[in-house]
Formats: sequence, structure tokens, C-alpha cells
Amino acid sequence: MEKRYKELAPPQRILLGPGPSNVDPRVLQAMSMPLVGHLDPYFLEIMDEVMELLRYVFKTGNRLTIPISGTGSAGMETSLINLVGEGDEVVVGMNGFFGQRMSEIVRRCGGTPIEVKEAWGEALKADSVEKALANSNAKVVALVHAETSTGVLQPLKEICKIVKKYDALLLADTVTSLGGVELDIDQFGVDISYSGTQKCLNCPPGLSPITLNEKTVEFVKDREGKIQSWYLDLNLIEKYWEADRFYHHTAPISMIYGLREALRIIYEEGLEKRWLQHLTASRALIKGLNAMGLETLSTKNNLPSLTAVKIPEGVTDAKVRKTLLNDFNIEIGGGLGDLKGKIWRIGLMGINACEKNVIIVLEALERTLRMEGFSVKPSEGIAAAMEVFEQ
Amino acid sequence: MEKRYKELAPPQRILLGPGPSNVDPRVLQAMSMPLVGHLDPYFLEIMDEVMELLRYVFKTGNRLTIPISGTGSAGMETSLINLVGEGDEVVVGMNGFFGQRMSEIVRRCGGTPIEVKEAWGEALKADSVEKALANSNAKVVALVHAETSTGVLQPLKEICKIVKKYDALLLADTVTSLGGVELDIDQFGVDISYSGTQKCLNCPPGLSPITLNEKTVEFVKDREGKIQSWYLDLNLIEKYWEADRFYHHTAPISMIYGLREALRIIYEEGLEKRWLQHLTASRALIKGLNAMGLETLSTKNNLPSLTAVKIPEGVTDAKVRKTLLNDFNIEIGGGLGDLKGKIWRIGLMGINACEKNVIIVLEALERTLRMEGFSVKPSEGIAAAMEVFEQ
Repeated sequence: MEKRYKELAPPQRILLGPGPSNVDPRVLQAMSMPLVGHLDPYFLEIMDEVMELLRYVFKTGNRLTIPISGTGSAGMETSLINLVGEGDEVVVGMNGFFGQRMSEIVRRCGGTPIEVKEAWGEALKADSVEKALANSNAKVVALVHAETSTGVLQPLKEICKIVKKYDALLLADTVTSLGGVELDIDQFGVDISYSGTQKCLNCPPGLSPITLNEKTVEFVKDREGKIQSWYLDLNLIEKYWEADRFYHHTAPISMIYGLREALRIIYEEGLEKRWLQHLTASRALIKGLNAMGLETLSTKNNLPSLTAVKIPEGVTDAKVRKTLLNDFNIEIGGGLGDLKGKIWRIGLMGINACEKNVIIVLEALERTLRMEGFSVKPSEGIAAAMEVFEQ
Repeated sequence: MEKRYKELAPPQRILLGPGPSNVDPRVLQAMSMPLVGHLDPYFLEIMDEVMELLRYVFKTGNRLTIPISGTGSAGMETSLINLVGEGDEVVVGMNGFFGQRMSEIVRRCGGTPIEVKEAWGEALKADSVEKALANSNAKVVALVHAETSTGVLQPLKEICKIVKKYDALLLADTVTSLGGVELDIDQFGVDISYSGTQKCLNCPPGLSPITLNEKTVEFVKDREGKIQSWYLDLNLIEKYWEADRFYHHTAPISMIYGLREALRIIYEEGLEKRWLQHLTASRALIKGLNAMGLETLSTKNNLPSLTAVKIPEGVTDAKVRKTLLNDFNIEIGGGLGDLKGKIWRIGLMGINACEKNVIIVLEALERTLRMEGFSVKPSEGIAAAMEVFEQ
């Protein structure tokens, strides 16, 4: 043996970036349970319960509500490749990094993205979506509910109404909203949505919950030509999760154990209570940041689960994040694409959306910025944040 | 709250089916470690070590040796969609369920499978592969090293030589061989191979280790047209695992913790020792089965990690497997496709390839078959198996 591989001993981080968030110890415990076979009667029950619990967090009656065996990005790809074929036009909301990615996948499907643009940091306008629908043959509108790259919450309900008027399907990326931000698939009128497990659900990354209504299921079945992907073909995956459990692939058993536990925690606490916790925590964070003299990227449509803060002039992005990680064990995120070096992204997701974390991150940021020569009045940020919690 | 979801409490199974196999407690322990971010310096080190350890089990110097963020089937899809484009001919070995699946994916890529057929239970003939290469424009030969559906080991080394002669690329599915059956990517001359974590590596399902040499990397880069899939595009995934860690998707951190530990165990024990354990265990199992009056599906090319046994006349497949599961907590597998109801598949994979499990499964099978009216001489199977271990 030439090299010794040490025992795994990850540092204890407070994960306040764009995800993954910290995982509840109950979820880690569930993931360490002994494996059963993926066709074991016990596991089939677990699969049924996971579907039920996912319907609860998505607020939907959709039969086809399951976790895809891949990360959130696999959910994005699954949604698009099952809907979009050669020559299809798709309206895509383009006001952040993940909208760009959707557009790229539409192109790989042989489709044409009709891009509805807004500045990064702004929400999409329902009018612009309507114009795009009126001037194209698009049967699908794809947008990101909670833009992780900019901290913007889209006016989903409003856009759903427009899409319905044109009898198109609305596809919503809810990776950073599911379980933390108000979302009601059925009442909003979302036709298909995918999410991730590592944000407001506090489960490790590796699965992508997806839900689609019968109208969308029919749309997928009636599509011309075979789905390009075999692994992500919803017609096949559907049969694996249905009563017959027609063999498709071997489900990631331990990850599904973990997801069930993560969903069970939200179910016990109550979904609406969770939403409120996220709202309160993000309000407190923004108040605190403002009191310290920092500005958020946008002043409205702020996403409760993730806040984008402008990096003050003269402060070095990487240095601050490194100090936060090394000296305070706190991870926050940098900017993506054009926003690299211009913003920080602070996530307060799931169990992380609490008073303690708001105080901790404000305190660490204040101390780190002071080292960088940025003048902040001691503790003013924390005082402002605490006011919100005390209300 | 209308429904109560109980605490997770899976039964303790002995998993002797086609996979998943039992997971080493050290792996479960690793998976329950606290999460760090996927760009955390600690995690970047873990990624490097996982690549090194995968090179060790694949026996390769290939730089691009990484786990794909999906199950073994995602690995199959990744390999094919990156190699095969519209109109391409691909030679596919068809002597089992997973060869059929490869053929299906080639068709979805717009390619044409040149199918080299053998009866299920037989190995492919190098001559037939040569004929297919001589009579087509195929630049890729795809085959399954260890056919999980039939318990057959393909003569991989021999076929590699033929493929080299025609300057084609050899793609090998090593899902059920990696870590348990003799495999030497570089010495055999395999150009690209994918595997799964839930077989001989004793890690939960959810990741697909993949390795490709520089010739194959170049082949992928030089291909005409964009790869259909964004999620499984090796050009993008490569950049995420390389020094720059160019953001692609969020790696499934806990699963990668688990895989590292599973590989570390094999590294500590020694790969070749593992291979020998599988050989011995499967020889003992087959001797025992034969002594009980049972026959394997094929008499040669038996796969050390999985044995296919013919179900004796008059014995009901489902009933026997149900009794084994409910009364003995032992899972074995049924047949797939045309072999449904005709064979059982007994896997002895990784830590499961041991004397104790051989004895346990023979004893349980003997007792269960006797209940079914199949006459077996008490303990003759066990005695025959023990002889092998005592040698």
C-alpha cells in the first residue's frame, strides 16, 4: 500500500450558501439504515409514502409525483426532454443563470427557445410572457420560480394565468422554493415542476422531486418521436413507480430513505409554518444587512430562501468568503456568470432559516468586513435583525 | 394531521439477489457524516481521492475516471450518448437483458445497432464480433462484461483484441464485475467502461463510476453535433471534476462520501484478494447447488459474482422467493425477460461473497424446496460447498 486514505472527517460547516443546506440529523440517521432490495415489499411501501409526502409539499393531487434518480439538474433535463422535440418553440424566462440553462437544454432537444429577457435581479413581467406566447407557436412556457443565481422570486401565479389563456403548459423550476416558499402546484396552475432535495428540504443532493398533471402526462405520451433519453423517459419511469413496478433502474434506496425522513419532518411541522419561518428569517437578514450598510441586489421580489447582497466597493469577494469559511465555518455563495465578484448569495433554507443563523452570519460578516476596512457600526445589523424576530 | 408516517425501520435482509448487495456498516457510517458544500476545499480533496480510488479498482491510469451522478443505467446512457450520433453503426453484444437495453439506447441516439446474438446463458463469440466489425462501419463495440440477467462472464480480453484490430472503441458494462471479478481496464484494452455502486462495491445504488481513456475522450470531443443530453455530457462533467471545478451540477455529496469509504475498504483489503473471494464463494455455491440436484443456467463462463440457477420442474418461482424473504430474510432474484419463472439469480457480491452466506442460502433453499415437494438429500449441498472452503 503506497498511500493511506484517512478516515472521513468532514468539518462542521454552517451551510448558508445557495445549497446544499445543512441536513437534519434525523435524515442522516435514516440514510444510515440497512438496505433492502428495491423490489422488497418494505421498499415498495416507502416508495408509496414518498409519493404521498411529495404531493403534500408540492400541494398537488398529481398522481405522477416522484423523485427522479439524479440531482436537480437531472429534473430540469427530464422535464424539458419529455416535453420538447425537434422544431418545437418554447418560451423561456431569461433573468438568471438557471433560465439560461433551460434555454441551452431546449436547444439540445432540437427546439427553439423564445427568450423572454429581464435584467438579472429583476422578475419576469407577465406582459412579456404574453407577448412571446402571442407571437409564437410555443406550447410550453419554462421559468424558474426561485432564481438561485439572483435571489429573485418570480410572480408565478400571475404568469400561470397568462399561460392558461393560451392553453400552453407551464413548467416551473422550484429547486430553491419547494418546502420553503409559498407554492401550490394545483391552485397556482403549474402543469409540471421539478425541484432538488438539497435546498429547503434539508436532504443531501442526489434526487430531484418532480410532479406533473394528467394534461402534461398526456402531452408527453402524444408527442411525436421517441424521447431521446432512456434513463429520463417519463413513460418508463412512470411504470416503475406505478403499481406494477416495471423494472427500469435500481432506485437509490438510501437517498429515498433520507428524502422520506426530510419530508416527514416538514409534514410534522406543517408546510405553511415553514414558509413563514423562511419569510421571517429573510426579512430579518435583509434588515440586518441594510443596517450594516449593505444592499440587496434587488429591492423587490426578494426570495425568502436566498438573498443576493451586493459586494461593497473595494472589498475582495474571495477573501471574505474564505475568511467566513476558515475562521467561522460559514459557507456563503459567490455570484454566477456576470454577477461573479459582484454579489454574495446567502441562503437560509429549511432548518437553516432560523434566528440563530441570521445572527451568526451577520456577526461573522460584520467582523470580516471590518478586517477588510469596510466601516460598519458594531452590532447595528444584529440589533435590526433581532427586532424582526421580536415582533 | 390525518396520516401518521412511522419511523423508518427496514427489516435486516441478507441481499443475495442481483443487487443491491448489503452495504458495509462503515459505508453507512460515512454517509451519515455532516454535509459540506460541493465546492468546499474539503470536498474537493474527497473528489480527488475518489478518482484515485476508482482508478485503483478499475486498474487504469485514465485521467477521466469519475462517478456519474445517477445509477448504473445512467452510466450506460452516458457512455452511449457521448459516443453515438445520428446514423452511427454500433456493434452490440446481445446475449442478455442488458445487451438489449444498450441496443435500445443506441436506437434512441439515432444510431443503428449491429446486433451480435447468442442464446441467453451463452457467452459472445469473438468470431461473431469480428464478422460484425468486418461487415459494418461501426467504430464502437458495446458489450456487457458480467451479464447480471444470465450469470455469464464474457471473454472480454479476447474480444478487446479483435476490436483493437479494427481500430474501434470497446465499451464494457462492468456493473456486476467491478471490484469482484478480474478486470484490468488498461491491460485488457477496454476504452470506456461504466459500473454501478450497489453490486461488488457494497455501496448503496445511486452513482455510476465511469472511466475512459484519452483516445475515447478525443473521440467524444471530435464528434459531430452536440451531445443530446446536457446532464450527461462528458465534456461538461469532465470540467466539473477537473482542477477548475467548473460548475455543472451539485454533486451528491453523501453518496460520494459512501463511495469513497466503499473503495477505501477494497483498497485496504486488496483488489486481487477480493476477486479470489468471489471465485471461491461462487465455486462453493455451484458445487452445493449441484449436490442438491440443481443446475446452473450455463455450465461454463460462470460469473463469480452472480449465479443463475434453473428452477426445478414443478416448483413455483414466486412462492419460493417469498418464503426465502419472509421466513429467512434472504433476497434472491428472479429471471428477467424470457427467463422469468425459469431461473433464480443468486448474487454473492463484495462482502457478501463469504462462506457464511453460501451456507445460509443453501440451507434456506434446501428447506424451502423440501416444503415445495422437491426432494433434496439433507445437508448434501452444504457438505459439498464446505469442501471448497476447506481446500
